[in-house]
Amino acid sequence: IYTKDASRLRKTFGRSLSDLISLSLSLSLSLSLSVAWASHFQRLFVSFIGADWIFLMILGFIMAVISFVMDVFVDNFTEAHRWIYDLADSHVLLQYLAWVAYSMFLMCFAAGFANIVSIQAAGSGIPEMKTCLRGVMLQEYLTFKTLVSKVISLICVLGSELPVGKEGPFVHIGSMCAALLCKFMSLFSGIYKNEARNKEMMTVGCAVGIGCCFASPIGGALFSLEVTSMFFVARNYWRGFLSATFGAFIFRLLPVWNRQEDTLMALYATKYRLDFPFDLQELPVFAVMGIVCGFGGAFFVYLYGKITLFVKKQKATNSFLMKKRLLYPALVTVLISTLSFPPGFGQFMAGQLTQRESLISFFDHRTWSNHGIVADFDNDDHLAAWKHPQANVFVILSIFVIMKFWMSAISITLPIPCGSFVPIFVIGAAFGRLVGEGLATLFPDGFNMDGHVYHITPGVYAVVGAAALTAGVTHTISTGVIMMELTGQINYALPILISVILSNMISQSLQPSIYDKVIRIKKLPYLPMLSWGHRDKYNIHVGDFMKREVRYITLNSTYRDIFKILRSGNLKTLPLVKSTESMLLLGSVERAQLLALLKQRSQHLRKENAPTIPISYKVHFQIEEWEEQQLDEQVNFNNCKIDPAPFQLVERTSLHKTHTMFSVLNLDYAYVTSIGRLVGVVSLKELCKAIEGSLPADGVRLRPILATFRDRGVRGSWTETTELRKLLDHQIS
Amino acid sequence: IYTKDASRLRKTFGRSLSDLISLSLSLSLSLSLSVAWASHFQRLFVSFIGADWIFLMILGFIMAVISFVMDVFVDNFTEAHRWIYDLADSHVLLQYLAWVAYSMFLMCFAAGFANIVSIQAAGSGIPEMKTCLRGVMLQEYLTFKTLVSKVISLICVLGSELPVGKEGPFVHIGSMCAALLCKFMSLFSGIYKNEARNKEMMTVGCAVGIGCCFASPIGGALFSLEVTSMFFVARNYWRGFLSATFGAFIFRLLPVWNRQEDTLMALYATKYRLDFPFDLQELPVFAVMGIVCGFGGAFFVYLYGKITLFVKKQKATNSFLMKKRLLYPALVTVLISTLSFPPGFGQFMAGQLTQRESLISFFDHRTWSNHGIVADFDNDDHLAAWKHPQANVFVILSIFVIMKFWMSAISITLPIPCGSFVPIFVIGAAFGRLVGEGLATLFPDGFNMDGHVYHITPGVYAVVGAAALTAGVTHTISTGVIMMELTGQINYALPILISVILSNMISQSLQPSIYDKVIRIKKLPYLPMLSWGHRDKYNIHVGDFMKREVRYITLNSTYRDIFKILRSGNLKTLPLVKSTESMLLLGSVERAQLLALLKQRSQHLRKENAPTIPISYKVHFQIEEWEEQQLDEQVNFNNCKIDPAPFQLVERTSLHKTHTMFSVLNLDYAYVTSIGRLVGVVSLKELCKAIEGSLPADGVRLRPILATFRDRGVRGSWTETTELRKLLDHQIS
Repeated sequence: IYTKDASRLRKTFGRSLSDLISLSLSLSLSLSLSVAWASHFQRLFVSFIGADWIFLMILGFIMAVISFVMDVFVDNFTEAHRWIYDLADSHVLLQYLAWVAYSMFLMCFAAGFANIVSIQAAGSGIPEMKTCLRGVMLQEYLTFKTLVSKVISLICVLGSELPVGKEGPFVHIGSMCAALLCKFMSLFSGIYKNEARNKEMMTVGCAVGIGCCFASPIGGALFSLEVTSMFFVARNYWRGFLSATFGAFIFRLLPVWNRQEDTLMALYATKYRLDFPFDLQELPVFAVMGIVCGFGGAFFVYLYGKITLFVKKQKATNSFLMKKRLLYPALVTVLISTLSFPPGFGQFMAGQLTQRESLISFFDHRTWSNHGIVADFDNDDHLAAWKHPQANVFVILSIFVIMKFWMSAISITLPIPCGSFVPIFVIGAAFGRLVGEGLATLFPDGFNMDGHVYHITPGVYAVVGAAALTAGVTHTISTGVIMMELTGQINYALPILISVILSNMISQSLQPSIYDKVIRIKKLPYLPMLSWGHRDKYNIHVGDFMKREVRYITLNSTYRDIFKILRSGNLKTLPLVKSTESMLLLGSVERAQLLALLKQRSQHLRKENAPTIPISYKVHFQIEEWEEQQLDEQVNFNNCKIDPAPFQLVERTSLHKTHTMFSVLNLDYAYVTSIGRLVGVVSLKELCKAIEGSLPADGVRLRPILATFRDRGVRGSWTETTELRKLLDHQIS
Repeated sequence: IYTKDASRLRKTFGRSLSDLISLSLSLSLSLSLSVAWASHFQRLFVSFIGADWIFLMILGFIMAVISFVMDVFVDNFTEAHRWIYDLADSHVLLQYLAWVAYSMFLMCFAAGFANIVSIQAAGSGIPEMKTCLRGVMLQEYLTFKTLVSKVISLICVLGSELPVGKEGPFVHIGSMCAALLCKFMSLFSGIYKNEARNKEMMTVGCAVGIGCCFASPIGGALFSLEVTSMFFVARNYWRGFLSATFGAFIFRLLPVWNRQEDTLMALYATKYRLDFPFDLQELPVFAVMGIVCGFGGAFFVYLYGKITLFVKKQKATNSFLMKKRLLYPALVTVLISTLSFPPGFGQFMAGQLTQRESLISFFDHRTWSNHGIVADFDNDDHLAAWKHPQANVFVILSIFVIMKFWMSAISITLPIPCGSFVPIFVIGAAFGRLVGEGLATLFPDGFNMDGHVYHITPGVYAVVGAAALTAGVTHTISTGVIMMELTGQINYALPILISVILSNMISQSLQPSIYDKVIRIKKLPYLPMLSWGHRDKYNIHVGDFMKREVRYITLNSTYRDIFKILRSGNLKTLPLVKSTESMLLLGSVERAQLLALLKQRSQHLRKENAPTIPISYKVHFQIEEWEEQQLDEQVNFNNCKIDPAPFQLVERTSLHKTHTMFSVLNLDYAYVTSIGRLVGVVSLKELCKAIEGSLPADGVRLRPILATFRDRGVRGSWTETTELRKLLDHQIS
């Protein structure tokens, strides 16, 4: 703008001398102004980029797009599956081959792709994220390669119609996107170099993942908090909500733009009656369903554990299986798609429906059977699948539940990206529908209410069953909230919450959650929170893993010493001890403070010697020889800001306690002292190494949250005890 | 059972000798068995009582009953108000007197009762609970007297129809119930003597309070977490959900049992259409409403602050007002009820409706005006209030919003139990209804969607407006969730969340939340969380407030010393130092360990001397004279469990840092060392005293959560610095 002004000036005033002067003046003015503006804009841009909400919006947007595109691809894949199947309807064997080969091909591609590009893409991702967020970063777990590998193989896996879901992988994808976005943003703004902040952003990534997967921002934010953390900061809760809301909004907006839908709606919008949601007498049934689902959930986790261990054993003994990595996925796919082949056994378990279609049919507000007679659904594709000339709807639903149960348990053991949330959801919904249909048959006129007849809605039972079974497997409450957002109905909040809580109570007392089970089986370096009054089992202490070679400064340090120390590494703070002999820790000094001291000193020297040295010396900041001699003087710390109370540990502090303090107080490092003497330093790096080395051979045992409700012990006392003898051995005195 | 068996035995076998023997045998057996059973049952009972879920259920039940009974009373009071008003319809002046005097009488009674019984009952209670839960227990704040005072005056206040709510007081009541229940339960089970656990239960009490107030368990649990804590433990989140769910369940069950309602429903159940909740083009309107409500919320907080300070000033200068404490409430009540007198000005602001009735009318799914003509609502009492022959609905709604705005701001400054949540809710709903009606008039056929005509539902705007304005005043997200549970509709989750987030963004950057404002105005001893990289303003260090007289044991302690120390107080742990001269801290020993040492010693002595002393000495545990001499021996600590790393601070650790550590790590005490020497101890008691003494004169300044999003600083460095000179002064060397 200013340069344009200048050129306009030129035209208006002609080329007189005074004009030329004013021109040159205005030009220089405009130049300096535009430089100022540019730097101002740059600063604005950096601060804009550095603002949390910008990051959260971008993250939400990216995740929404990924989720939407993935859904489109998966839809196309499943449509193609149906198309090939219909194409081959000349002969049933041909049809069978088309049905099975398609799934097998996609599955093999997915497994192979994940195996070649990045094996870290396999599995759900939630257990691994849990481990990462507790402090131990897994290798190669948040790279771009893993992201590509996970997204592409997930599309193929979902396209192959195995009973697996996308919610677990989406938590992983969300965190990867957050981590990569942080890396990208760090090119523009220094705030993204802060690792603790980036880790918080990964928690947000988990929330966005769920939020974009089910279009459930509230449930997503809560689920990510429940699953990934033992304690959460209000800040992260806010961030999760903000990002997940925006993500879910975009995720639901895209189908509208794409003309697939009319407006923003729940993913599985339902049409249950609003005036009388449920009868009081139905509540005990919901409660019993919660209890049964609790047992079912625990059994699922148990079954999954058994299958995984069995497969592991087989792989270890059978070298053939080990070599042909694709064989196991291929075999499982053939088995499952053979059983669900629609003209074959699949006709007894609605094999032609995808997971989404089954869910829509379960949540339908109509009753399928009345007085044992199945209503006429021939005009509805989804519901027609549940009608069979030979078997009634109860038999089909029971077969569906039983078959899907073990199929899902097997499927999620495959080395592919897969989530357990959605298949469990489907099984729970089927179970609920079974119960609901049963009740509707037993009480065809509903429970009478003062003359009004309110029929039983079996769809509601499907909703409750889905929430309760998922809660039993994942040990969370937020599944109930997700369920409400998914179906767009909150009228059933109380039945859902009651069954979810009961299911949790049962399953938490029987088995760990599926995520904790994976952590245990995979032996991930997860360190559980030190529970108060819980005896320490791992006998590792700070003294065993601290770094003993500490770089420090003393009160007698010369400027040269400081110069050397600053050059030798980039520690943010340095400990200040009294003297090399006593090693008494006085406090810590920030690197910036020391740099300022050095600069001040050299400027001071230059000023003093200014008349005697040529002017060029003053311009270049070089440490000259004559100056170097001055550097042997003792440092004057008088104007230096010293932190008088850096975080201190003693050698006998246990690993658990150290880890708890580091994670809760968000520390980067702590000094280890013995009778006031600095003997070592522990940073996050040492701590992580120690944690990885301290895992028990059979993996970490995790306690479910509700178990802490049963604790009788007094809290607050860190009962890490030792015997006097050992204590005195360690004490240097 | 066993004694019955015995008597049956007697009848069957007659009175032969052998029978008598068997009888006496079985009798003695049954006796000993019944004693064993009794103790077993007692143990079972204690462990049952000690179980968290029992406590949570009882708490939920009590709160539900209180909430329900309170609602019944308030309904009766308002009905009586209408009855008296109708009775006096012979003359308008009489009617006016009846209308105003009734309110004034109730209000004066409430203010007087609260003033006489327990002045702590006044106000909302959330700011005070926030302070309590952050560590500083306010005097007399959780007593039974306060509970009674709060409940009874709250009933009268709500009965007087001032624009105040019951949600804030219910948070307080919930916490009081939790605290009192803990006290009661501690009679049966020792676990309730654990203070930290009881404090956690108070957090749960907050959740239950909200849950029972609005029948919104999810929103309640989240609201309590957002409002009361800066960081939350997964355990408390679970407890809150469990208890709030049960409470809300009972709260909604009671009206069903009472035959007031047919089944469990949302408190303000709505009947909006499910097939097409809202048009995409309505979203910008929702967003703008969020922004406007953000400004409105900030203005409300500002207004409240100004009024409070004005009243405070008046009271300080005007001794008359100071003496007549009831004058101010009475005057305000007269003013407000005069303005809302239905035949007077009240006809322009629907003065005859209670808050509940207004809300029901705002959330109604029908459109009030079409093409500017008000529809016919004569058969509906609530809606008829909005129809006026002279003024159209927009004028009435505008007057309602403006009048209620300042009325609410004044009402919550009165020295009575009152919440600001519900009045704000009503204002927001009215504002939303105004916008909705406006849009419905501007677009009578809705926004066209491919030929389908979907009319605009103004009730939805009322829902969004209520959520957004409340969010702006309270700075929470969970108001959105509460709104969904209250109306029984989750289809509008995205509009609600978007407007809630925008409202928060605006209001958090302008004003503190209403609760933080109260904390500041009342100068409550609230210590904000130390934000990372935030310079310490209060120059208080551990050395200034620690307890210097520490009771300790040394390696040379005799049994007598330990006996004395144990008798002199009931510290849970004692520090172990090397010797009295060196004072080097070796670790800490639990009281129980020392007791065991003493017991072991005395038993050992007795065993050694057993043959020489009479048997009666062995039975009574008395320390005999001859034993006392043995007590002068040095203690053998070899078998004693010592905690080698008790929590340590140095004298220069700042108050903020100490408080953060204590609250985050849940500590009870910490030792203060100087170069390894024990110089003092800090317990929660000292810490609380120091916090109370360290408050700035104008109250604590609290930062809204979203402000942390704008932090640019690096985190993790506790930049509490000092100068070397000061440091060396403190260092004893």
